[in-house]
Amino acid sequence: MSRSRDVPTLVARAREGDPRSVARLISLVENGDPALPEVAAALAPYAGNAQVLGLTGSPGVGKSTTTNELVRALRKVGKRVGVLAVDPSSPFTGGAILGDRVRMQEHTTDPGVYIRSMSSRGQLGGLSAATPQAVRVLEGAGCEVILVETVGVGQAEVEIASLADTTLVLLAPGMGDAIQAVKAGVLEIADIFVINKSDRPGADATYRDIQGMLGLGERGPGEWRPQVVKATAVKAEGVEDVLAAVDKHRDWLSKTGNFAVRRERRAAVEVEAIALGTLRSRIGSLREGTALTTLAAAVAAGELDPYAAADELIKGL
Amino acid sequence: MSRSRDVPTLVARAREGDPRSVARLISLVENGDPALPEVAAALAPYAGNAQVLGLTGSPGVGKSTTTNELVRALRKVGKRVGVLAVDPSSPFTGGAILGDRVRMQEHTTDPGVYIRSMSSRGQLGGLSAATPQAVRVLEGAGCEVILVETVGVGQAEVEIASLADTTLVLLAPGMGDAIQAVKAGVLEIADIFVINKSDRPGADATYRDIQGMLGLGERGPGEWRPQVVKATAVKAEGVEDVLAAVDKHRDWLSKTGNFAVRRERRAAVEVEAIALGTLRSRIGSLREGTALTTLAAAVAAGELDPYAAADELIKGL
Repeated sequence: MSRSRDVPTLVARAREGDPRSVARLISLVENGDPALPEVAAALAPYAGNAQVLGLTGSPGVGKSTTTNELVRALRKVGKRVGVLAVDPSSPFTGGAILGDRVRMQEHTTDPGVYIRSMSSRGQLGGLSAATPQAVRVLEGAGCEVILVETVGVGQAEVEIASLADTTLVLLAPGMGDAIQAVKAGVLEIADIFVINKSDRPGADATYRDIQGMLGLGERGPGEWRPQVVKATAVKAEGVEDVLAAVDKHRDWLSKTGNFAVRRERRAAVEVEAIALGTLRSRIGSLREGTALTTLAAAVAAGELDPYAAADELIKGL
Repeated sequence: MSRSRDVPTLVARAREGDPRSVARLISLVENGDPALPEVAAALAPYAGNAQVLGLTGSPGVGKSTTTNELVRALRKVGKRVGVLAVDPSSPFTGGAILGDRVRMQEHTTDPGVYIRSMSSRGQLGGLSAATPQAVRVLEGAGCEVILVETVGVGQAEVEIASLADTTLVLLAPGMGDAIQAVKAGVLEIADIFVINKSDRPGADATYRDIQGMLGLGERGPGEWRPQVVKATAVKAEGVEDVLAAVDKHRDWLSKTGNFAVRRERRAAVEVEAIALGTLRSRIGSLREGTALTTLAAAVAAGELDPYAAADELIKGL
């Protein structure tokens, strides 16, 4: 963004709910724009007001249908809603994921809903740095609930969990997901399990599997026992139960002080990701300059060892 | 390593070619031992003496058989040889890759050959930081040629290329590898293409495919045109041709000044990886301390924006 004087205007308009300004700000985040620190400073006072829900699960469990129904239910009770669909695999925006968004078209004309796909293109520190900033933009724009949806692969779902107040893990019957969930360590990140497509055979077995696995872990008196909820999003069944479980979790978070703990942990992850991204880009600019080049020449000549060179490099940052 | 006074002794013994000391030093590298800077300082004077060959290719093209035959041919002319088999996917040492090493058993009793499997376990900065250090250990131990072998998947082969003086990309006929190579951008890293299993049908077609693709790229007068060599390692055929191509490439590197350029670029990548690893671990220790915690609390409360907090964090490093 070339004219940084635009930032206060953009933030002011986003605060009024102007969707184009919101879109513009999230694009700045996604592209790792140099104006980001200014954007973050302008948004800081509005931080922490939205409830952030993470939604993850394997491909095919019905994530976008579920998101769509959750949005509908939240709109019914008058909440302003933001949706971030995070694609950890794509270096491009949208693409495959935008296809799914077609199912949410009914919400695109609703000024109370903001829907956006995001990739990690450009942003230093990847999605772990970009996603919290996008959440901040949506918070600033007055969203009361923000759904962050990502496909359950690799590191992305763990990052979503560290970002969310409440993490929902979607499963579907008969996909071997219950066992998969344990393997992937998803048990540790799920606050709520949603068994979607519960009208299919095997839903009860999946329900019992999950309950059984949850029963195995010991829990202290103040600890949260993950809820297991059956739903069939495509028929709009069970969505109220999911939201009831979310409310129950939020009450638990507040009552036990875990709300503040999670928010601070989230901020720590965010600050750390930004700091590492900044350091990486500073080192990158030393590469173009002379510092790293000179040090590397000394290392290549055997006059300096690489650890001593790295220390020198760090001193120069 | 608890007693750092052992480092000078270990390095001195490795210099004399004691295989147990070499093994111990590479284990320190692999585990990211706190004594690493001391090890690197002790090895620095001996840096840059070995010729480093990178060897990559898809599973099944015959990497370990080829390595085995290259080792045999190099031993015949009296060279001391080191082999690093790098497994980018495994969090553990050895494992699957060690199975392949059985084919190299004939060399295990030869004091002029050192063979080692490596994983990225523990090392900050992953294999991009660990592999150059292991190369330094082998250089210190007097290896004149070091073969670094990795399976051609994802980022690892690019890292191997940035580490090697000469990069060999192995293909096999009829695997669609010629097309794959272009897709994966392997054309840019290969100094030499080895079409292994050349006794199989389709070897000539693969040869022509590669030559055709190389013909497409424009080359300036001082630029290297990748060599294409046919071999059948399992019958020890074509191995001399591969080594002749390696020698030709080394001559080109020296004559054009590219040798020094590659060595300095390698050192730059190495220093950068170590510096980022150090910074990441310093931030990690701030997480346990109070700095990051205090900053995160201010961010969570909306009193500070995350970019300002990240700047504070960096100042405290």
